[in-house]
Amino acid sequence: MKTYNIFTNKEDSFPTGKADFLLAASVTRTCEIVGITQTGIPGLIPLTPTLDAEFIINEKVFSIGELAETQTGIPTPAIITRAVHNLTPFSSIEILDLGLQVTPQNSICHTFGISPSESIADGANIDAKSVFRKGMNAGRSYELKGNYLILGESIPSGTTTAEATALALGYDCRDDFSSSFLNVPNIIKDETINKALSLINEDMNSFEKLSLVSDNMLIFCAGFLMEASRRFHVVLAGGTQMAACLLVADKLREDVFMRIKHDNITLATTSWVANDKNSDIAHLLSLLSFTPHAVYTSFSFEDATIPVLKKYDEGEAKEGVGVGGALGYANANNVKEDELLEAIEYLLYSM
Amino acid sequence: MKTYNIFTNKEDSFPTGKADFLLAASVTRTCEIVGITQTGIPGLIPLTPTLDAEFIINEKVFSIGELAETQTGIPTPAIITRAVHNLTPFSSIEILDLGLQVTPQNSICHTFGISPSESIADGANIDAKSVFRKGMNAGRSYELKGNYLILGESIPSGTTTAEATALALGYDCRDDFSSSFLNVPNIIKDETINKALSLINEDMNSFEKLSLVSDNMLIFCAGFLMEASRRFHVVLAGGTQMAACLLVADKLREDVFMRIKHDNITLATTSWVANDKNSDIAHLLSLLSFTPHAVYTSFSFEDATIPVLKKYDEGEAKEGVGVGGALGYANANNVKEDELLEAIEYLLYSM
Repeated sequence: MKTYNIFTNKEDSFPTGKADFLLAASVTRTCEIVGITQTGIPGLIPLTPTLDAEFIINEKVFSIGELAETQTGIPTPAIITRAVHNLTPFSSIEILDLGLQVTPQNSICHTFGISPSESIADGANIDAKSVFRKGMNAGRSYELKGNYLILGESIPSGTTTAEATALALGYDCRDDFSSSFLNVPNIIKDETINKALSLINEDMNSFEKLSLVSDNMLIFCAGFLMEASRRFHVVLAGGTQMAACLLVADKLREDVFMRIKHDNITLATTSWVANDKNSDIAHLLSLLSFTPHAVYTSFSFEDATIPVLKKYDEGEAKEGVGVGGALGYANANNVKEDELLEAIEYLLYSM
Repeated sequence: MKTYNIFTNKEDSFPTGKADFLLAASVTRTCEIVGITQTGIPGLIPLTPTLDAEFIINEKVFSIGELAETQTGIPTPAIITRAVHNLTPFSSIEILDLGLQVTPQNSICHTFGISPSESIADGANIDAKSVFRKGMNAGRSYELKGNYLILGESIPSGTTTAEATALALGYDCRDDFSSSFLNVPNIIKDETINKALSLINEDMNSFEKLSLVSDNMLIFCAGFLMEASRRFHVVLAGGTQMAACLLVADKLREDVFMRIKHDNITLATTSWVANDKNSDIAHLLSLLSFTPHAVYTSFSFEDATIPVLKKYDEGEAKEGVGVGGALGYANANNVKEDELLEAIEYLLYSM
């Protein structure tokens, strides 16, 4: 494995030492629109972040009998993140409950009194100012155990809400966003985003827009990031959603009169996102008022013996549950690609 | 303030250094029996542990507009524990969710997939073996931040379930148990305990009995304690309920072939419990197969300017939310009685 810069495709650095792993887990009822996501078990998609949380912490799930799979049977990226932990442990794995339908079992959950948000097609009904403030408070008070923090996300249909969010805030980014699908269901996504955008108007401030078209993960993590990165290095582990999180932070910093300490921030994603032909994370990041440290780590399932894993290389799933950050962490801690593949397949076999 | 040995009433030691504070928060539907407890807001008693958790962490409550008070308006002991934290901070304050009706907001919650237990009058419907095992696992994996741990509890009607538990396990302890009442509602309590005891028989093993007549806090903490005390010192912060927790551990150690490392355990309560004429914690502790380190810390509201606080000195409330341990911690860290009183009254005034 190697870690590369997203803009230059040249080898790049990753923070060193032990990392805390925090999973920002949230439900937006946007995920209940039929066909919008392939993250999770059909009919039980709002459970996905709960199951992801349980799995990365416990190596098994409790809130349902089987692990969340996509409709085509692709295992959740949580399995990669957990395999990394088994080879080079994080200092801690904890959950930010940013509106879950079911509390994860056998976990350490940071709670904020945040409920699942509504579908953006009808208005998300978020108190964006309150959620952003909660994120800032949490970023200010989070007690780091290791040397730096990796912040991942699990929020089904999150690429849809991320695209709506960035467009609502005025960024020129139509079609920059990724999806967990190989064949992106653009019609359903676009319809949903257009419905969301029809709810806002130019007289609204950023918080009012976010309250209608965004999700709790993006808003909370934007606030969290701004405060936490003043104290320690934060790896935003994710693809276009985490890029949207940076866009939200960059917009809201004007409202809270803060600077973004961007030398303390790294966006870390997978090669599946960085090289995705259906999205453009580099362009998204170029819309920021600063040039962020943004990397991806090469890892492929070319040598997988479990065929379904090769779907990742074809462009299914791509990101989520902090995989991009976990791969960077693995590489920085000298985990070899073949031993990681073995650990992932071992996890799959033992399920 | 001074810390005394419960058996000898002579000055005694308390662990030194910084302590993590863990609140074992749980609901038994026994608390819904009218008149059985005065912990909490009438009609909202199952919310009490949620509100206690929020208050000790945040110095305010979120899940309801006002702080839990007893029917006679006595503030929850949480206010004392929080005042101690303001004067000599714990290394951390976190929650063990052992079956809460409402998840505390703005808290760090350890979750185990445990639901509120049923009223012991009809059978608690607990899987005692599973809950005990979860406690052992948590005790084995808990990551200590400071030098030792203070484990408190919040479970309305917990003295009733504690008495039923100890009697069911065969301990000779009728009338040894305390209550949050000055004038103990013995008829309702005794009726409930007798109903519970009628559900068990001598053919049942300890786990089967506990599943019917106990509560999640006692069973979980017994397992937690046995494992955690192998690694660091644990202060069981509470009165007769925590004594019952030791009795449960002492009974179950035979089932799990473990020794209790009792030199790493201190029971710490208040003088209101230690000197209570309606209960006998020293006798309860004398039923153990070992002599535990057991202390209480003198503190009184004699000089209080807020009259309602003096009810504590008359025998209302007495214990809960780890007050006994918090007082010992305050004293060991050189907090003076008058500054603690001031901090408590300041908290009450600012609510």
